[in-house]
Amino acid sequence: MIRPLPLSRSAPSTVSANTITSSLLAVETRGTGFIDISREVAKFLREAGAREGVVTLFIRHTSASLTIQENADPSVLRDLSTALNRLAPENAGWVHDTEGPDDMPAHIKTMLTATSLQIPVLNGEMALGAWQGIYLAEHRARPHRREVVLQFLGSVG
Amino acid sequence: MIRPLPLSRSAPSTVSANTITSSLLAVETRGTGFIDISREVAKFLREAGAREGVVTLFIRHTSASLTIQENADPSVLRDLSTALNRLAPENAGWVHDTEGPDDMPAHIKTMLTATSLQIPVLNGEMALGAWQGIYLAEHRARPHRREVVLQFLGSVG
Amino acid sequence: MIRPLPLSRSAPSTVSANTITSSLLAVETRGTGFIDISREVAKFLREAGAREGVVTLFIRHTSASLTIQENADPSVLRDLSTALNRLAPENAGWVHDTEGPDDMPAHIKTMLTATSLQIPVLNGEMALGAWQGIYLAEHRARPHRREVVLQFLGSVG
Repeated sequence: MIRPLPLSRSAPSTVSANTITSSLLAVETRGTGFIDISREVAKFLREAGAREGVVTLFIRHTSASLTIQENADPSVLRDLSTALNRLAPENAGWVHDTEGPDDMPAHIKTMLTATSLQIPVLNGEMALGAWQGIYLAEHRARPHRREVVLQFLGSVG
Repeated sequence: MIRPLPLSRSAPSTVSANTITSSLLAVETRGTGFIDISREVAKFLREAGAREGVVTLFIRHTSASLTIQENADPSVLRDLSTALNRLAPENAGWVHDTEGPDDMPAHIKTMLTATSLQIPVLNGEMALGAWQGIYLAEHRARPHRREVVLQFLGSVG
Repeated sequence: MIRPLPLSRSAPSTVSANTITSSLLAVETRGTGFIDISREVAKFLREAGAREGVVTLFIRHTSASLTIQENADPSVLRDLSTALNRLAPENAGWVHDTEGPDDMPAHIKTMLTATSLQIPVLNGEMALGAWQGIYLAEHRARPHRREVVLQFLGSVG
């Protein structure tokens, strides 16, 4: 006998959708670390009049990335940095090091996290969980200007 | 001389698309492990009458995640768990440990896998490869109730 | 006092969008390595007449994956391979090894990178950064035929 999956699902709700709204978010980082950009994305959705659909975030860099993580305890972000440093250490015999010892680890950290993210929008709000924040992760040691394309696709009103 | 890329591409096919259908999938996990949710996503697409478009999956948590993996040999999933445990071990000096030794590793495993996934839908079916299954990965030791937003964007009929 | 986030954002621009165009890209790999498929995706978008929207890439395999990485210095790709080999080594006691020692590491590398990617399209061009290339990463030692679904969703003209 096959055991049923322990899951349930709400009835699907459908709307008509044919609007795309785009914006470019520029973030000045202060070197390695995580910057919470959730509020700025929410503001963008309000300006766009977003109702139902999906918001895409795309970071235009290969040494900074995106991740959705716990936003309650700042020590989580500290541990995430530690974890990334262990997974992609400096001075580990990388061939590509013309831009300094933090350069190649930054590319590896980008590969292991996300360059693009999609978040459903329901009733004008992102469907984030209670403890989810959207972070831009700067992987280079020095400050950089980073660009994130925000794009809403769905219904407005 | 530049060698041509060894690739080919089918002629693009185009349809009109302006429907968004959303649903919330709740999954009761039994602690650490992978749960195949492919069938439930397929069922959602049938109910939505999906024809051409894309289905987005978004998990509303930071200690559970999504991944698309081999669904033929269960030992693959066992090895994936082993790999994640090696990449994000317990008792590795994490600062964030108020919720137990499996908490911070769960956040790291989430960061290394996916919070959002997109799968194209063609002729009413997800364009999954022959051996691809969609998995919810529970990274906490104890059972949890997890929520996944399913959203189809495209044409129906 | 809360310090303002060091960011700025362009005014949102909106278009109407209701077209989905899909195509299947087949790539013959020569074994482990990265293949730049950016041009082929750009060609697809031109054929589709894409203006504003988003292009989804989905790879139909669990031992090959997608990543967006630096396209200027080839040594970056070499180091990325080294990093993946360190994170998912062969002969590390994997249970699943019927297809050879490179099989299970290939699944792990796929889990750590991306199966689906989304790139915004603005004014008919992907919004890639100056140094971003889209790569298919083959994780198996031997050559394989890999399939990537390309799907544009947005406005055409």
